[in-house]
Amino acid sequence: MPGSHSRRRREDLEVVAGNGLLDRRAFFKGGAALAAAMTGYTLSDSAAAQQLADDPWSAAAGNRVTAYGGPARFEKGVVRTLSNPNGEPRTQHGRTPHHLLNGTFTPNGLHFVISHSGDPDIDPDKHRLVIHGLVRRPLVFTIDALMRYPMVSRMAFVECGGNSAPLASKDPIDANVQAIHGLVSCAEWTGVMLSTLLEETGIDPRAKWLVAEGADSLALSRSVPLTKALDDAMIALYQNGERIMPGNGYPMRLLLPGWEGNMNVKYLRRIQLVEAPAMSFYESRTYAQILPSGKAYQFYFIQEVKSFITHPSPGLRLSGPGLYEISGVAYSGNGRISKVTVSADGGRSWAQAALQEPVQAKAFTRFRAPWRWDGGPAVLQSRAWDEAGHAQPTRAEIVARRGETKTVPSVLAFPAQHYNTLTSWGVAPTGEVKHVYA
Amino acid sequence: MPGSHSRRRREDLEVVAGNGLLDRRAFFKGGAALAAAMTGYTLSDSAAAQQLADDPWSAAAGNRVTAYGGPARFEKGVVRTLSNPNGEPRTQHGRTPHHLLNGTFTPNGLHFVISHSGDPDIDPDKHRLVIHGLVRRPLVFTIDALMRYPMVSRMAFVECGGNSAPLASKDPIDANVQAIHGLVSCAEWTGVMLSTLLEETGIDPRAKWLVAEGADSLALSRSVPLTKALDDAMIALYQNGERIMPGNGYPMRLLLPGWEGNMNVKYLRRIQLVEAPAMSFYESRTYAQILPSGKAYQFYFIQEVKSFITHPSPGLRLSGPGLYEISGVAYSGNGRISKVTVSADGGRSWAQAALQEPVQAKAFTRFRAPWRWDGGPAVLQSRAWDEAGHAQPTRAEIVARRGETKTVPSVLAFPAQHYNTLTSWGVAPTGEVKHVYA
Repeated sequence: MPGSHSRRRREDLEVVAGNGLLDRRAFFKGGAALAAAMTGYTLSDSAAAQQLADDPWSAAAGNRVTAYGGPARFEKGVVRTLSNPNGEPRTQHGRTPHHLLNGTFTPNGLHFVISHSGDPDIDPDKHRLVIHGLVRRPLVFTIDALMRYPMVSRMAFVECGGNSAPLASKDPIDANVQAIHGLVSCAEWTGVMLSTLLEETGIDPRAKWLVAEGADSLALSRSVPLTKALDDAMIALYQNGERIMPGNGYPMRLLLPGWEGNMNVKYLRRIQLVEAPAMSFYESRTYAQILPSGKAYQFYFIQEVKSFITHPSPGLRLSGPGLYEISGVAYSGNGRISKVTVSADGGRSWAQAALQEPVQAKAFTRFRAPWRWDGGPAVLQSRAWDEAGHAQPTRAEIVARRGETKTVPSVLAFPAQHYNTLTSWGVAPTGEVKHVYA
Repeated sequence: MPGSHSRRRREDLEVVAGNGLLDRRAFFKGGAALAAAMTGYTLSDSAAAQQLADDPWSAAAGNRVTAYGGPARFEKGVVRTLSNPNGEPRTQHGRTPHHLLNGTFTPNGLHFVISHSGDPDIDPDKHRLVIHGLVRRPLVFTIDALMRYPMVSRMAFVECGGNSAPLASKDPIDANVQAIHGLVSCAEWTGVMLSTLLEETGIDPRAKWLVAEGADSLALSRSVPLTKALDDAMIALYQNGERIMPGNGYPMRLLLPGWEGNMNVKYLRRIQLVEAPAMSFYESRTYAQILPSGKAYQFYFIQEVKSFITHPSPGLRLSGPGLYEISGVAYSGNGRISKVTVSADGGRSWAQAALQEPVQAKAFTRFRAPWRWDGGPAVLQSRAWDEAGHAQPTRAEIVARRGETKTVPSVLAFPAQHYNTLTSWGVAPTGEVKHVYA
């Protein structure tokens, strides 16, 4: 056994890309190689025993079990950042702290929220969902009625069309992954397939679109092609097992897996089947960016393949040379992630990352790669591919195609939306991590 | 299209077991049949339009986005039930409200908790994990050190060995699914495989067991065979994406997928490799039930295959005859769930339920079956099988093998522990649901 361990270690420690990237297969072999090379935490037997002296919290009874639990008080910094903390009468953003999370989805307290007119305080017993327009018979659903229908559960990311907009800036920005990529999250949604309800209402053959409307004071509405409604659209009632959060559409939202976040209409109260899109505010203005030619992207629905590294990332300082796990999330509105590669030398060489199973369509896929940092400068990048064959564009590719801006762009201005290029994190010899371009 | 719909409806509505159980394949066909038969929510077009008058919450701006979100105020009843709400110096239980949840895992606020001496208020910067005993070199790990290791994420249920103990009672009890089965939950755990750390410490060939010890004031400790430690044991640092909850072991716990909850030592501070089990309090007394013969079950580690229906269940009154979804959770410490069947006539006939994909080993599997209630008496049951070939025992089988008690048993008394029989819910013509035996 010691012999075979030694052999495995030599194999596993194989550097497969520049600047210390190691073979991902180390993960499948129990991590021996990584562990073997990771020193600095060894203490003598007596020192180890000394660590077992009682800490203060071991000396007395602890805290009460509560009816509804929350994080430890030492985690009070693990929160969404708020763009409008006083709730002034304009849009509010709450961004997910990806660098402080791990795993494959976002806990409910930290799912990103964009609220244009606040979260309405909806009494679920009085809320109704109406399906009408070009149907054979209009129907009204109470929550209790929906609860009797067949349900499905699925993981799905939701991403604002303006997420990652800062990457369109000509110069790197002094910001962390939360500020750059905090407007995407992933959750398990449980509810009733919209196709189930539409089979009950019947569909007039003239219907080609639907208009979904929320019960917020803005009555936010978006047009959705009927093909998507009949494919994988869901009336979501539960989020990560419990009833959907107020910021995510309580008591129900339209879920359009992989499509622009704003279309996943929250506080859903109306679905009207129509012949043509309504050209509502958000689809004709906010999410129809005007191109340099004077034309506009119309109906850029799909959130395309993207990935970013969460660990290490700005704010997570490296504590010294040695082995680290590079980890992040990848996702695509086109289906499953098929491959993620990582670079430690700014894209000159690449190693394939391990993907956490099960890989699910239109959901976060956690990727991981072992990396031995030699203490010198490094530039970390990830790049994802999806099963539809799309590759996440390099920065050169997307700038050539979509352009960039002189300053950090607003999500309203071209080319900030749907900007899915690679993210580069520069690691300094001090261990500090910053956003860079490479 | 209308023609093909009609044909599908006839097929899908096929009754496949007594008292109205329908073919699960309706789920895979979009639910047309279910929808078609589900009436009572139809309104005229003008009545539908009337529903779209503004509700009060649509008339003004809503609530602020918060840094850390929580459920809507209308969901304040969705909480754990507490056995010791004042935190008196004895064990506290917080039970999961399965009947109010849906999906495939438990949100962090509602994961069950058993705390024998309260939740210690551990400062993660000062907490240490020591691995010592029969190792080549003892090691001490800070949280920061562990965070550099390769991580894995996996769904896993954790279940108290005494969960479902009330089912050992001779007579049915006036209790809901939370009271009977609330001491099991499921979460995604992310952390470092224990095997990774043990490869770094090295293992003395004499070592056959380890003793895991928590930093709670009780210093709760359990012995674990080294084979399990090297199989799928994890040092879990994250729960459903965020750092582990105080009631579930913050800042880290030992996760032994599929094994008795009490062994998944919370607030983990020590792993000592030894030659023989320590015969600690919980393994030699609480979880070593004395059998009628005077002998005891020693080391009954695996939580065996179990399932229960969450919807409908006591407290969820049926609102009238018609179609309902029967839904629940199934799980096994032996691996994946391979099949779940449901009965609406107390076990005389059975229909196969649909399993929510992806089915993951040692994790909750949500099962669903369509049911048309005719308004008469019904007895609902579910029964699960796992990939290892084990079937959940009927009540007659488990009573024959394990016995029953005259009163609702304590988890300390035989045969209450690991009591994994079927659960029966009786539905009265009033729509009321109660625990029964059948």
